[in-house]
Amino acid sequence: MIERIYAEDVTAEQDGDEISVAGHVHDVRDLGGLLFVILRDGTGRIQLVFKEDDDADLFAAAEDLSREDVIHVTGIVQAADQAPGGAELAPTAMDVLSESESPLPLEVSKDVDADLSTRLDTRYMDVRNPEVRAIFSLRSKAMAAMRDWFESEQFEEVDTPLLSEAGAEGGADLFPVVYYGREAFLSQSPQLYKQMLVAAGFDRLYEVGHAFRAEDFSTSRHVSEIAMFDVELGFITDHNDVMDVQEESLRHTIRAVVENAERELELLGSELTVPEEPFPRITFDEALDILEEEYGHFPEDPTDLDTKGEKLLGEYFEEQGHPAIFVVGYPKEKFYYWQREGDDIASRKFDLLYRGQELSSGGQREHDRETLIAAMEAGGVDPDDFSFYLDAFRYGVPPHGGYGLGIDRLIQQLAGLDNIKEAILFPRDPERLSP
Amino acid sequence: MIERIYAEDVTAEQDGDEISVAGHVHDVRDLGGLLFVILRDGTGRIQLVFKEDDDADLFAAAEDLSREDVIHVTGIVQAADQAPGGAELAPTAMDVLSESESPLPLEVSKDVDADLSTRLDTRYMDVRNPEVRAIFSLRSKAMAAMRDWFESEQFEEVDTPLLSEAGAEGGADLFPVVYYGREAFLSQSPQLYKQMLVAAGFDRLYEVGHAFRAEDFSTSRHVSEIAMFDVELGFITDHNDVMDVQEESLRHTIRAVVENAERELELLGSELTVPEEPFPRITFDEALDILEEEYGHFPEDPTDLDTKGEKLLGEYFEEQGHPAIFVVGYPKEKFYYWQREGDDIASRKFDLLYRGQELSSGGQREHDRETLIAAMEAGGVDPDDFSFYLDAFRYGVPPHGGYGLGIDRLIQQLAGLDNIKEAILFPRDPERLSP
Repeated sequence: MIERIYAEDVTAEQDGDEISVAGHVHDVRDLGGLLFVILRDGTGRIQLVFKEDDDADLFAAAEDLSREDVIHVTGIVQAADQAPGGAELAPTAMDVLSESESPLPLEVSKDVDADLSTRLDTRYMDVRNPEVRAIFSLRSKAMAAMRDWFESEQFEEVDTPLLSEAGAEGGADLFPVVYYGREAFLSQSPQLYKQMLVAAGFDRLYEVGHAFRAEDFSTSRHVSEIAMFDVELGFITDHNDVMDVQEESLRHTIRAVVENAERELELLGSELTVPEEPFPRITFDEALDILEEEYGHFPEDPTDLDTKGEKLLGEYFEEQGHPAIFVVGYPKEKFYYWQREGDDIASRKFDLLYRGQELSSGGQREHDRETLIAAMEAGGVDPDDFSFYLDAFRYGVPPHGGYGLGIDRLIQQLAGLDNIKEAILFPRDPERLSP
Repeated sequence: MIERIYAEDVTAEQDGDEISVAGHVHDVRDLGGLLFVILRDGTGRIQLVFKEDDDADLFAAAEDLSREDVIHVTGIVQAADQAPGGAELAPTAMDVLSESESPLPLEVSKDVDADLSTRLDTRYMDVRNPEVRAIFSLRSKAMAAMRDWFESEQFEEVDTPLLSEAGAEGGADLFPVVYYGREAFLSQSPQLYKQMLVAAGFDRLYEVGHAFRAEDFSTSRHVSEIAMFDVELGFITDHNDVMDVQEESLRHTIRAVVENAERELELLGSELTVPEEPFPRITFDEALDILEEEYGHFPEDPTDLDTKGEKLLGEYFEEQGHPAIFVVGYPKEKFYYWQREGDDIASRKFDLLYRGQELSSGGQREHDRETLIAAMEAGGVDPDDFSFYLDAFRYGVPPHGGYGLGIDRLIQQLAGLDNIKEAILFPRDPERLSP
């Protein structure tokens, strides 16, 4: 490796030490005989101070630098109160590893507010912006923390296919694929596979992968290719066991972000608190009552919450110190695999709302094959199309449940972003298939 | 959750304690007045001993059990030398959670050697077999260990799209997707995205995801949907830096499997040793010399190793205590993004062979845009089709390299499996798209 330390690791305590750094040239300021170069790497920035009197050749080379050139610089650390991090570097040698063209297609600065579409077109420039880069550092830290929770709780990671003969939700909104001359579809959800694995004896499993929704939309909360964190649990008593797992893993994740991504949250201006209190678990009917009584809001579809309703509910509970809540017992059975159980709620399906946005759906699943077939037929789904799945219910399946969490939405909410696409490196929507 | 402990956690020390277990009925033996039921969960098996004299009703219920019913049993632990684990259970209560049909479509026993295709058709039964289940426990443990290595080395996880306008390798073997009325393709590799992210300032990144190859094959080492562990490093000196990362992460992973998956390796009959010695790094020419001199073997294509050549090389080095080797400097440039550098080797591309099979390809990439364009043109690839990628090379890109490791092949080799499909829960090939 090219020898170097990261910008964030250069401190005033190293005063007088010789070190090397490497990265992109963020800015150059020529004061005549004195040249300030800001070098940027993935962790931050450091100021390089070139003096013509010290080394005329090196100074001349520095004068030739353009913004976004890639350089490797060795020099002496100098404590400097006014410098970010309290230290700057007096270079003794420099190597230009790669030169940048000018002008730049996008400014690498938080002051420039290019529209999102332009930013996504040149994402390789946009992500150089420290405020944008912080989103993806936060994402990496959050996902590592979430995995850690599941690993420490003895969940096993599984890996199921994205290409299949049938979709998880019965045919709507599927992307067709030409598969060796026949038709296949991209997965909307690993749901059916997770359930088959519970039938096969896995009782604590998770999967991280992509899902695809061919919906035609144009909102700030949808994309066509989604990152999902899926969980399934066998031997549950009811849906509350599933909510317990989601609640504990999310609390752990938020705590890790608050503790380990302080710099990123500050850059993003996102103020997070760890939801230490139990997440409220309200019924769908209670949710409607709150919307009506507090806001006079009635969702257009009385069997589901709308975007505005979710936002208002989020505000209502956040004011009471609860950024995350579960809404339990949706009357609308979006998918045939949740069904009424004769409880005092209309179904064992729940959604998690976090900071006013739905992050996930889950619930207890039906594990009785006959009931499942009847529910499919009532929902207009032909059971014959799902025999590969239904067959798994013939030979002993424990009661089970799970959920699928939208990772992109979670990151959007943690980072406090207006648009879900900001949380995805290379998002896909009906218009965007490149880069 | 339904209260229970796992079979592997029941020990003779608990003699006299009341505990609960839950799982599938693995076997029932009726000795008249005495009934032995073997209960199986994800961790192992425990024997339940029902006596008619103790509780006639409970005994009658146990007599009605069929193999693969799902039960929840409470009872008193009894130390028993002859029982697996040194303990069995005298049940005091039983709940049948789900009943299985008979006959079973596949026996859940290691003695039965059903053909692979039948096993995959009924994977929800096949994975109940402890020897099969062990493959996926091992897989989960190996992947957690590999991630841990990268997290502890400050790599950041990234997430790039599977749907794109263009393929990474220039058009061959792509699966077309109907994307809102236009044509998209499934990703063959995140290669181009990883490189664009290095351009954007990430210098230690990894990604775990799927890749798709529409090749028409019928071998024991190919599938159409592949799990990949991809790595990319900025600011490298040369390809040896990339090999260092791969070597250390693989050694760490194998060590974790040897230490934490002892039971799984024993069930699979796979004897693994941790490759503590540095992995030999031989040139492609040296590899050919060994094949010729030791085995009289000449690969059909003199610019690449064939399957037999890889196997023979694996044997040659394994006998010398080296299960893993790098072959460096392939003359055949499979992809346009590796190119000759005027070294004493024909390219900075390398393959990793482990136990006689190629697990990954990698190398130093070209980061000079003009050279890249010339290499594309020489390779018959139209640079205009890759402008989204080539544009990223205009504005400063550090020297970089990386590799893509086939996770399924790694698991195949760790578990000692004949066919790669055994290492995948629901594999995909030209014939198989279900379940």
